[in-house]
Amino acid sequence: MPSESVFLENAWYVAALSRELNATDLLHRTLLNKGVVIYRTQDGTPVALQDRCPHRFVPLHLGRRDGDELICPYHGLRFDCTGACTQNPHGGGHIPKAAKVRAYPLQERYGFIWIWMGDATPDADLLHDYAPLVDGHENALGQTYMHLKANYELIIDNVMDLSHVDHLHSEIISTRGQLTPLIPQVVENAGSVSARWEWRQTPGMLIFNNFLPDPQAETRMFVQVNWASPANIQLSIGATQGNGPLDLDACIGQYDLHTVTPETATTSHYWFATRRNHLVEDAEFNAAKIQAMHGAFVNEDGPIIEAVEQEMGGAEFFSLSPVLMSNDAAPVRVRRLLRQMIAAQG
Amino acid sequence: MPSESVFLENAWYVAALSRELNATDLLHRTLLNKGVVIYRTQDGTPVALQDRCPHRFVPLHLGRRDGDELICPYHGLRFDCTGACTQNPHGGGHIPKAAKVRAYPLQERYGFIWIWMGDATPDADLLHDYAPLVDGHENALGQTYMHLKANYELIIDNVMDLSHVDHLHSEIISTRGQLTPLIPQVVENAGSVSARWEWRQTPGMLIFNNFLPDPQAETRMFVQVNWASPANIQLSIGATQGNGPLDLDACIGQYDLHTVTPETATTSHYWFATRRNHLVEDAEFNAAKIQAMHGAFVNEDGPIIEAVEQEMGGAEFFSLSPVLMSNDAAPVRVRRLLRQMIAAQG
Amino acid sequence: MPSESVFLENAWYVAALSRELNATDLLHRTLLNKGVVIYRTQDGTPVALQDRCPHRFVPLHLGRRDGDELICPYHGLRFDCTGACTQNPHGGGHIPKAAKVRAYPLQERYGFIWIWMGDATPDADLLHDYAPLVDGHENALGQTYMHLKANYELIIDNVMDLSHVDHLHSEIISTRGQLTPLIPQVVENAGSVSARWEWRQTPGMLIFNNFLPDPQAETRMFVQVNWASPANIQLSIGATQGNGPLDLDACIGQYDLHTVTPETATTSHYWFATRRNHLVEDAEFNAAKIQAMHGAFVNEDGPIIEAVEQEMGGAEFFSLSPVLMSNDAAPVRVRRLLRQMIAAQG
Repeated sequence: MPSESVFLENAWYVAALSRELNATDLLHRTLLNKGVVIYRTQDGTPVALQDRCPHRFVPLHLGRRDGDELICPYHGLRFDCTGACTQNPHGGGHIPKAAKVRAYPLQERYGFIWIWMGDATPDADLLHDYAPLVDGHENALGQTYMHLKANYELIIDNVMDLSHVDHLHSEIISTRGQLTPLIPQVVENAGSVSARWEWRQTPGMLIFNNFLPDPQAETRMFVQVNWASPANIQLSIGATQGNGPLDLDACIGQYDLHTVTPETATTSHYWFATRRNHLVEDAEFNAAKIQAMHGAFVNEDGPIIEAVEQEMGGAEFFSLSPVLMSNDAAPVRVRRLLRQMIAAQG
Repeated sequence: MPSESVFLENAWYVAALSRELNATDLLHRTLLNKGVVIYRTQDGTPVALQDRCPHRFVPLHLGRRDGDELICPYHGLRFDCTGACTQNPHGGGHIPKAAKVRAYPLQERYGFIWIWMGDATPDADLLHDYAPLVDGHENALGQTYMHLKANYELIIDNVMDLSHVDHLHSEIISTRGQLTPLIPQVVENAGSVSARWEWRQTPGMLIFNNFLPDPQAETRMFVQVNWASPANIQLSIGATQGNGPLDLDACIGQYDLHTVTPETATTSHYWFATRRNHLVEDAEFNAAKIQAMHGAFVNEDGPIIEAVEQEMGGAEFFSLSPVLMSNDAAPVRVRRLLRQMIAAQG
Repeated sequence: MPSESVFLENAWYVAALSRELNATDLLHRTLLNKGVVIYRTQDGTPVALQDRCPHRFVPLHLGRRDGDELICPYHGLRFDCTGACTQNPHGGGHIPKAAKVRAYPLQERYGFIWIWMGDATPDADLLHDYAPLVDGHENALGQTYMHLKANYELIIDNVMDLSHVDHLHSEIISTRGQLTPLIPQVVENAGSVSARWEWRQTPGMLIFNNFLPDPQAETRMFVQVNWASPANIQLSIGATQGNGPLDLDACIGQYDLHTVTPETATTSHYWFATRRNHLVEDAEFNAAKIQAMHGAFVNEDGPIIEAVEQEMGGAEFFSLSPVLMSNDAAPVRVRRLLRQMIAAQG
């Protein structure tokens, strides 16, 4: 892999939600600056190929599929789902050795299709465990996709420093100023950084307080974010009016995953999945909840993150001498760890 | 200041018309490649701050004001109108020394808000006197703003060589070919260049001849342009059918200011203000007149100046070996003087 | 001429269809990265001038014509159809020696206006003979123009390798797979490359089979493409159910010219002209036929060629290591010959 890569290459990134990929269509996405065509074989297995015919460089997603094979629209070369050319209709039909496209290893787990773009052998252990997302009633799971005109690290910054919820978002997810002054507990391990906040607020956060004994009473709350390389942040948040532990077993709350895949250095694919532990069978509530979350990203986080990208003009974050504060502890650790991992990939 | 700056930095530029800045809103403009947020304090004083929070680089105009302070929308840092951070709601509330934004000195005069972007101490003497603009009845003053996709020097060129009025503009401000062959008197001083034309035409210029004794008769006319650094051109123009001196006291005429502020190297803010000495109380005439002037800029000068910018493709003017003629004497002197002043700023 | 030019400069390129240039208007086109204004003098002769006033760089097509002269809209300089300045209305009227614009030699032949952009003396012998286009009934001639966001060599590639018709196009011009496996006869000469395919198909190509004795029967067909520098491809295609020779005299067929002029390195002007040898007086059929051809270019070839340009991202074709096959013999020879000719122009 080129040492100048700006991304961590040997890692699992999300390529799509499982439900974004239907049985027949060719899905085209640019991931880490590379065009990829993704589809399901007839048995439902997802496949990702380099989206460029090696002959005349036509994106293969402009072609058509025949069974599990793709046919280039320009001169009819066929490729199977390993990327091998299986038919050259020209001349004697000889298939040149170089007539192949790269196939990217995929894994479909937790409602996502994960892709390995690097040159090293895929390491299944690097795909983190987000099993709780898919464990339970379907109406307690929400998923959404957003495209942002911003570098992926700005999106990670946003989630790793949750103090912004008191300033950027509307009352619905506000801590009423209680979280902002807290200095979170930050723990760094190999390839992961976590931060945790605990506080009391009156009333509890509006997204939870109707499920608590007294919607107007003081509430104990926690939120924990766990970043794992390359760009996954698992977030758990909960509220209780009892004296039990601050965890999802004892609280009204939700288990979320924020995951980002660089499209280019300045644009990103951003997915969010959430499983709540209350009102789990209510489809209507589920739809309204994920729509509200999507709206918050698109109308509140998105414009600010994109404005920062514009203002930074492509410069490296630390080169602009940001004034860092206590709330930056977690995102700055992620940035430093990620830089080290990218530098180490050689 | 970086020696590579393409602009004269230590100078007063217009940031806005006074009336563009109301009592409450945050006005955002890019001036000399820098984002600036401009607003009025509660006592009406205009303030200009660097439009970038030093923490995470969010443009502050996306935030909100509380009294005379601005609050960053992302994490709630507050800045007063000197650019000092007055509140950090995070952790112990410690305000890092570097947590400040640059405040740009302003002066509000002659209906404009003037800004000093350079690093040197602002020099009040460098703000030229355009007092006649605001001396008299309000209905004799017109003001307008235009945005042009062209380097600011192309706009200066346009006004310093008025021979274009016979070719580019409609009959209303034509000299009927009388000005074009004239070689203007050009005077150069430190930081200023002026040019003056005097001629006779029959009838007089249409914008004036209804105010002369005989609208169809021969008329004596003059126009004088006075460029003063960095990008101000005061223009006086008048017409008479008497034998008096060719000046605004003795003629039907107007006292104008053209002033340009670079937005970037290829885009400009352009303001025009005009005070006439006839029909001074007529609000309806005043509105129609400034609308006509605005239309001439937008429909006649603007497209040509923008086409030149496109055609030059960002090249330096003299590097393209323009064929210079007698009518270029004044604009070329301005270009050379401006180059010297920019080079001298170190 | 600068040795770094990416185009063959001393050559005849199409600037316009004759019918694109009416008696009065100024036509503006960028050809080989240079702005050109084209018009007809009062006697109908086409003229092409550099589209930039040498004074202040205004595109002359924004001005107006007076007789056979162009007048710059900004300061009134006049230029005749040789590019000489004939009037300077400023000062004493002196015309600076450098006040001229380049005039580009033109020839109007075969329904096209051809332009010579290079610095060498125009060589009339380099204008190839496409007389058959204009020899015959006007209702047997169709002409069309397209603008493509792609390098011109990608368009040449497309026509020099006709195997794509079986894959990219609808049934109307399909050979039903018969042409694809053929290895064409390729002949290379100085400044030209030709390729020829001959085959049998049942039924014949749909654009021809209604004019054959038995529309459903086996048909003998041929197609020949003759590339001549810089970017002209004459294509003859025909069908017969007899035993005669495979040429246009003995077949139902058509004589076409594809010709491309680079606008920039990544955009092209593309013209197509076709003369058929059947139903030659039918104006309605003629209109429908050229409309169908135009539709095939715009809806089928165009999107693929533009997608390839995007995917190549401006890289040189061979630098991307294309997997070449038997069907690439002709286009690759053209690319190599063109590279040699461009390198040789010094």
